Amino acid sequence: MSVGESVKRVDAYEKVTGRAKYTDDLCPRTALVAKVLHSTIASGYVKSIEIEEALKVKGVVKIVTCFDVPSHTFPTAGHPWSTDSSHQDVADRRLLNTHIRYYGDDIAAVVAEDEVAASRALRLIKVEYEAFTPLLTPNEAMHATSAPPIHENYPDNILCHSDFEIGHYEEAIKDPDLIWFEGEYDTQMVQHCHIEPAVSFAYEDNHRMIVVSSTQIPHIMRRVIAQALGVPFGQVRVIKPYIGGGFGNKQDVLYEPLNAFLSKQVGGKCVKLELSREEVFTCTRTRHSVQIKLKTGVRADGRIVTRKIEALANQGAYASHGHAIVSNAITGFRHIYQQEKAVKADAYTVFTNLPCGGAMRGYGIPQVTFACESHMQDIAEALHLDPIAFRMQNAMQLGYKDPFLGITCYSSGLKECVEKGMEYIHWHEKYPAYQDQTGPIRKGVGMGIFSYKTGVYPISLETASARLVLNQDGSAQLQMGATEIGQGADTVFSQMAAETIGFTLDQIHIVSTQDTDISPFDTGAYASRQTYVSGMAVKKTAALFKERLLSYAAYLLKVPESTLDIQNNEIINSVTKDCLITLPALALEAFYNLDYASHITAESSVQCKNNTISFGVCFAEIEVDLALGRIKILDIINVHDSGVLINPQLAKAQVHGSMSMGLGYALSEQLLFDAKGKPLNPNLLDYKLPTSMDTPDLAVDFVETVDPSGPYGNKSLGEPPAIPVAPAIRNALLQATGIAFNSLPITPHKIIEKFKENGLI
Amino acid sequence: MSVGESVKRVDAYEKVTGRAKYTDDLCPRTALVAKVLHSTIASGYVKSIEIEEALKVKGVVKIVTCFDVPSHTFPTAGHPWSTDSSHQDVADRRLLNTHIRYYGDDIAAVVAEDEVAASRALRLIKVEYEAFTPLLTPNEAMHATSAPPIHENYPDNILCHSDFEIGHYEEAIKDPDLIWFEGEYDTQMVQHCHIEPAVSFAYEDNHRMIVVSSTQIPHIMRRVIAQALGVPFGQVRVIKPYIGGGFGNKQDVLYEPLNAFLSKQVGGKCVKLELSREEVFTCTRTRHSVQIKLKTGVRADGRIVTRKIEALANQGAYASHGHAIVSNAITGFRHIYQQEKAVKADAYTVFTNLPCGGAMRGYGIPQVTFACESHMQDIAEALHLDPIAFRMQNAMQLGYKDPFLGITCYSSGLKECVEKGMEYIHWHEKYPAYQDQTGPIRKGVGMGIFSYKTGVYPISLETASARLVLNQDGSAQLQMGATEIGQGADTVFSQMAAETIGFTLDQIHIVSTQDTDISPFDTGAYASRQTYVSGMAVKKTAALFKERLLSYAAYLLKVPESTLDIQNNEIINSVTKDCLITLPALALEAFYNLDYASHITAESSVQCKNNTISFGVCFAEIEVDLALGRIKILDIINVHDSGVLINPQLAKAQVHGSMSMGLGYALSEQLLFDAKGKPLNPNLLDYKLPTSMDTPDLAVDFVETVDPSGPYGNKSLGEPPAIPVAPAIRNALLQATGIAFNSLPITPHKIIEKFKENGLI
Repeated sequence: MSVGESVKRVDAYEKVTGRAKYTDDLCPRTALVAKVLHSTIASGYVKSIEIEEALKVKGVVKIVTCFDVPSHTFPTAGHPWSTDSSHQDVADRRLLNTHIRYYGDDIAAVVAEDEVAASRALRLIKVEYEAFTPLLTPNEAMHATSAPPIHENYPDNILCHSDFEIGHYEEAIKDPDLIWFEGEYDTQMVQHCHIEPAVSFAYEDNHRMIVVSSTQIPHIMRRVIAQALGVPFGQVRVIKPYIGGGFGNKQDVLYEPLNAFLSKQVGGKCVKLELSREEVFTCTRTRHSVQIKLKTGVRADGRIVTRKIEALANQGAYASHGHAIVSNAITGFRHIYQQEKAVKADAYTVFTNLPCGGAMRGYGIPQVTFACESHMQDIAEALHLDPIAFRMQNAMQLGYKDPFLGITCYSSGLKECVEKGMEYIHWHEKYPAYQDQTGPIRKGVGMGIFSYKTGVYPISLETASARLVLNQDGSAQLQMGATEIGQGADTVFSQMAAETIGFTLDQIHIVSTQDTDISPFDTGAYASRQTYVSGMAVKKTAALFKERLLSYAAYLLKVPESTLDIQNNEIINSVTKDCLITLPALALEAFYNLDYASHITAESSVQCKNNTISFGVCFAEIEVDLALGRIKILDIINVHDSGVLINPQLAKAQVHGSMSMGLGYALSEQLLFDAKGKPLNPNLLDYKLPTSMDTPDLAVDFVETVDPSGPYGNKSLGEPPAIPVAPAIRNALLQATGIAFNSLPITPHKIIEKFKENGLI
Repeated sequence: MSVGESVKRVDAYEKVTGRAKYTDDLCPRTALVAKVLHSTIASGYVKSIEIEEALKVKGVVKIVTCFDVPSHTFPTAGHPWSTDSSHQDVADRRLLNTHIRYYGDDIAAVVAEDEVAASRALRLIKVEYEAFTPLLTPNEAMHATSAPPIHENYPDNILCHSDFEIGHYEEAIKDPDLIWFEGEYDTQMVQHCHIEPAVSFAYEDNHRMIVVSSTQIPHIMRRVIAQALGVPFGQVRVIKPYIGGGFGNKQDVLYEPLNAFLSKQVGGKCVKLELSREEVFTCTRTRHSVQIKLKTGVRADGRIVTRKIEALANQGAYASHGHAIVSNAITGFRHIYQQEKAVKADAYTVFTNLPCGGAMRGYGIPQVTFACESHMQDIAEALHLDPIAFRMQNAMQLGYKDPFLGITCYSSGLKECVEKGMEYIHWHEKYPAYQDQTGPIRKGVGMGIFSYKTGVYPISLETASARLVLNQDGSAQLQMGATEIGQGADTVFSQMAAETIGFTLDQIHIVSTQDTDISPFDTGAYASRQTYVSGMAVKKTAALFKERLLSYAAYLLKVPESTLDIQNNEIINSVTKDCLITLPALALEAFYNLDYASHITAESSVQCKNNTISFGVCFAEIEVDLALGRIKILDIINVHDSGVLINPQLAKAQVHGSMSMGLGYALSEQLLFDAKGKPLNPNLLDYKLPTSMDTPDLAVDFVETVDPSGPYGNKSLGEPPAIPVAPAIRNALLQATGIAFNSLPITPHKIIEKFKENGLI
C-alpha cells in the first residue's frame, strides 16, 4: 500500500536543505548574460533604434534589435499542437517587435559578459517611437478609431467570440411566471507571483539548441522554440530541473525562444536570460480581467428556468491562451448549475494594450465563479430562500452529461462537502445569528461552491507516457514526461508506481528532471491533469513492468506466472503469500544470469479520452470594521471532492496554497496601470500579495469519492481550491453589511467608498 | 545506406571546436577538492598517521586516513558481476590501506576548498611506517621469505594458476622425428597514457550518491561503488560524459569509490578527485609485464606437432583483471596456430610490490604474440623455411572450433591480409634482398600475424541494450548503455540505427552521455565488443522501432503494414517505392492525432552467446644504424580482417592509433623502478611515449570478410592493431642484423649492448 498514504515528499530533503538544483544553479560559470529592452510606450511603432553608444560598453558582446529578427510569428500557449491549422494556437509574436502592443513590449536585447554591462548597455540604447493612444479596456478596444488595430488581422481587436445556447433562450424568457435577476460583476488582473522568476539558459551542442528552463511544459516548449527559430523540432532539446512554482505562467513559452535566438547570435555560446520581478509582472502573463453580466429567470420556489451570461475578457497585447480561457469560463457557468429550460452564453476576448492574459490556476473559473456565486447569493436573499438549499436545488447532479463536450459527472461529493463545511463553520447557528446587525463591528458568514473539470479532453489532446527501469539492486527508476512544479507530482507518481508494482516507496527512484531528448512524452503540468492523465500512464507502465518482473521470475522459479505476485519487493506465491525470491536477488539474475540475462524495463503511453468533474465549497466567517473598512477572516474552510486522495497531506498543502491565492484575489491583489498603460505596482511591495502575516489559519477537509474514470479513483485538485474563496468572502461581507461588492479585489479603499455611499459610515 | 560509409564522426564538430563537455567541464564551481596521500614505501604497514598540522591549513575541510575507512574489501575489475561467488572478481582493496603493497599506495586523503590547500595539507601529514623489502619480480615473490605475503590469503603470492592441455603433451614429445625449439621472451610494464587523467566528482542527491566520472563502464562502476560503500546498487548513480581515452585503464574502477566516500564524509557536498599524470602512471593500472617460455616440436617440413607455453605475469599489488589476462594470453597462444598432436600451457599470475596490472588494449595478446611471432620467425630461419609459408601452414583455419570455449572461427581473411601486406611491402624482392647484409647501416623486413576474439563470451556474460525515441519532427533519439570513449562508438551506432530503420544519418540524434539512472544497461567499452554485442542491441531495437513506425503508418494510411517500408525518412510503398507519408508528417500525427496518439519508442536488450575471430598482420621495413643503435621505420602496414567495416575511415583511425601504441611498445615505452620499487619515470617526459614526430607514416589496409555472427558482418577491431607491430619490427631487426631481441622494448640502449656482445660494433 502506498496510494492514500501521507508519505513525505520524495524531494523534501533536497528542497529543505537547499540542495535541490534549480535552473540558475545549473547555469555554467561562463555563461553570457542577456537583458531585454522594453518599450516605454504601450502602443505604437519603433521608428529607429540607436545602439552605437551601447556597443561601446565594456563587456557587451552583441545587441539585437526588433529590426534584426526573423519576420515569421509563433504561438506561445502551452497547448498540445494540432495538425489542424484551425485548432492551432494563434501565432502573433515575433522574437522582438517593431509594433509595440503594451508598455514593456520587447524591442531589443543585449548579450554581455555580465549583468552590469548588459544593464549599462540597455540604458544607452536610444529608441525613437511613433506612439498611439493606448486602448486599455475591451470596450475602448472594440470601438477604437483613434489607433490602428492591435493585431492587423483583427480589425475590431476581438481575438475571439465564444458562445453557446442550450434550449431556446428567447422562448424560455417568455415564461410569465419568472422572477428576473440581473447582476454585473468584474474581476481584476492579477499575476501568479511564483517565487522563481522566468529564467532559462541556452547553448548549442552539436548544432542542436539546448535550453534549460523553469517551465511546466518542456515537450511543448521544445516545439515552440523550434517554431520560433524555424528549425525542425528535433533540433531543440529542453531540460527542466526543479522549478520554483508556475501556477500557469510557466504553461506559456515566455523568453526561451529569444534566449535560444540570442545564443545562436553569439555562435551558440551559453547565454542566460533571467527576468527581474518587474519584468515577470509586466512581460510574462496575467489572469484575465473579465467583466461578466448575468441574467437569471427563477421560479418563486427557487427552480432556475433560464440563465444567460455575457462576458468581456481583457486579453491584453497578445493571444497566448486567451481565447480558450473565457470559453472555459462559460463552460464552467454551464456546468455548476442546471436549469429547466435554457441557458445562453456570449463571450468576447478582446485585445488591449495591456500585459498579456494567459493561463493561471483555475483558467477562467475563478472569474465566472465569483460572478455566479455572488449572483446566486443575491437571488437567494431577494427570494428569502435558504442560500444553500437554493444552490443544491439547482446544482449539477451525479451523471450529468455535457451536451457539447459529452463529458460526464462520474462522481459527486458536493452535497457532503457542503454539509461538512456547514458543520465546521456552524452555519445553522451563525447564519441566522448574523442577520440584520448594527454597530461599527459586524460579522458574517458566506459560502460559494464550484465544479471543475479534470484535464482538457475533449477540447484538446490528452496523452502521457511513463518509463520504468529495473536497477541492479531490484529498485526501479521511474521516468515521467509530466513535471514536478512544486505541487508534489514526483511523490504521487512514485506512490502510484509502488502501489501498482507491489514495491515499497523507497524502491522507486523518480527521475525529477525532464529532458526532451530522453524523457517520455507528456504535455506537462496544467489543467490539474497530471494525477489523472499522467497517472494513467504510470498505472499502465507499472502493470507492464510488473508483468515482466513476474515473467522473469516464472522463468527462474520454473512455475506458472499466474501463480506469482509482488508484495513488499518480494515475488510471492499469490495464494500462500510466501516469499519465493526477493527483488534484489531477481534483479541480479536478470542482469547477470548466463543462461538468460534480460534488462527489464517498461515504457508506454496512454491517450485519455475521458474527463470528470471535481467539486468543492468554501465557507468563510468574517468580521468587518466599518470605520476602517477592514475585513478580518475569523474562520475559513475549503472542503473538496477530488476523488481518492493519493497523498492526503500533499492534497491538504495544495489546498492551503491555493486558498491563500484565493484570499489575495478576494482582498488585495491587483495590477494597476496609469492612463498610458504603464504599470504602477509591478513589484511585490506595492502589488499586495498576502504574506504569511496576512493569512489566517486555513481549514481544509475532503470528501473522498471514488471516481471510476480516474486511474486510482482520483480527479482534479491542483487548481480548484483557489476558486470559491472570493465569493465566500464577498457573500459573508454581504451578510455582515447588506452591501454587495461585485468588483474584485474588495480593498479597504473600495469598502470605505461603498460604505459612505450607502450611509454605513 | 549508412553502414559501410565513411561518414563524419557525429561528435567531430563538438570535439574539434572544444565544446564537447568532459568530466571536469561539468564539475560545479563550488566543488571541494580531494587529494590522496600515497605511501613512500612499496611494502609494509602504516603504524601511525599524524594529521594535526595538516588540519590547521586554511581551507582544509576533512582528512581521512586508512584507519578511518570501512574494513570490508571490494573488487575493481570492470567485469560483469556474477551470481556465482567463485566467478566474482577478487575483492582485495579497501578505500585506503594500512597494509602497503606498492610505492604510492593510498593511505590518506584530504578534502579542501581548493587544490592549493589540499596539497599543502598533504605535505604536513606525518606517517610512521613498518617497512619490508619489496618483492618486485614474480620469481622473488613466489619464493619470498623476507616479507609477509602481499595478500594474507595468498601465502605464496600467486594470484592465479591458469593451464590447459590439448592432446597428450608428454606422449607427443616422445615423437623421435621432432626438431625442438625453445625461446624465452619478456615484455615490459607500460601504461595507457590516455590524455584525460582519471577524474571524477561525487555528491549526494536525495540520499543517493551521484558520481560523474571519466569511465568506460558506468553501469559496472555503479555496482562497484555501491559494493565499496556497502549500499544497495540503486543508491548510486554514475554519469559518464565524453571521455579523453581509456584504452582499458578506465575499464577498472579507479578512485571513484574513494571519491564517493569522501563526499559522504563532508555531508554529501560535491567533491572532485582528479589524478596528476604521476598518479595516473603509478596508481591506476598498467599492462602486465609477462615472461614467456615457448617450446615447440616441429617436423622438417614445417608442420608443428606439439607446443608448450609457460608464462609468468607480474600482477603488481592488487588483483584487478590480473587472473583473466594471462589466461586470455594462453588462449590466444592456443588460437593463432594449430598443431598435429598436443599443446600445453602453464601460467602464473603473481602479486608483487609494483603498480597494479590491469586491462589494456589487447588484454594479454600483445605479450603472447610478441613471444609467439618471434619464436615462429626463429624456427623458420633455423629450418630455412619461408617464414610466411611456415606460418600459414600452421595458422588457424576457417571453421576452427575451440575445444574449451566452443567458439568458432566463422570468417577468416588472414591469407588475403598477408598477401596484401606482402605486396605492399614488396616482400618478394626485399626479403631475399636484405639477407646477409654487412656495413654500418642495414635494412630488414619483418612481419607478425595475430588472431583476436570478439567480446568475452563464453568466459563472461555478454549483454547490451538500446532505446530509440521518436521526436516530434520524425527524427529519433538513440540511447545506448555502450560508451563512446573516443573510438567512434556513437557514430557507428548511429549508422547502424539509420541503416536498419531506413533513416538518413542526420535523423538519428545519439545521446552520448550515459547515466545509469536512465541509460539502457550495457557492460561497457572493452574486449572490442561494442560494435559486435551492442551492435546487436541497436539492430534489434531499430527493427522493433521500425515495426512500430510502420504499424502506426498502416493505421494512418489504412493499408496493410506488410506493404510498407521506410527509405530516406519516408514511409514508402514497398513495391513501387512511392512515398506515402514523410516521417515528420507521421510524427506529428503520432504525437497529436486526436483519434490515436501514440508515443513511439523502442527498447530492447540482447544476450550474445557467440563470438568470432578477427585476424591481421603487420609488415615492417626498417633501417638500423649499428653505431647509433637507432631503428628507423622505413615503411609499415597493418592489414586487418575485422569483417565488414561500419565506417572505413573510423576503422582506419582506430588502426593508426593502435599501431602507434604498438610502436611505443616495441621501441621505447617502459615504466622503470628502483630497487625499492619507487617509479623512476612516471611522467610523459621520461616515459618516452612516441610523439607525432617519432611516428612514421602508418599504412593501413583491410580485407572485408562478412562474418555471419556479427550484426552487420562485423567483428573486433578496437584492440587488435596494437598486437602485431612489436614482433614485426623485432623480426625485421633480426633480418637486418641476425640478432634476436627477445625482450621489449628494443631501445637503443639494449641494441648497443647486444651489438657489442655479438661483435657487430
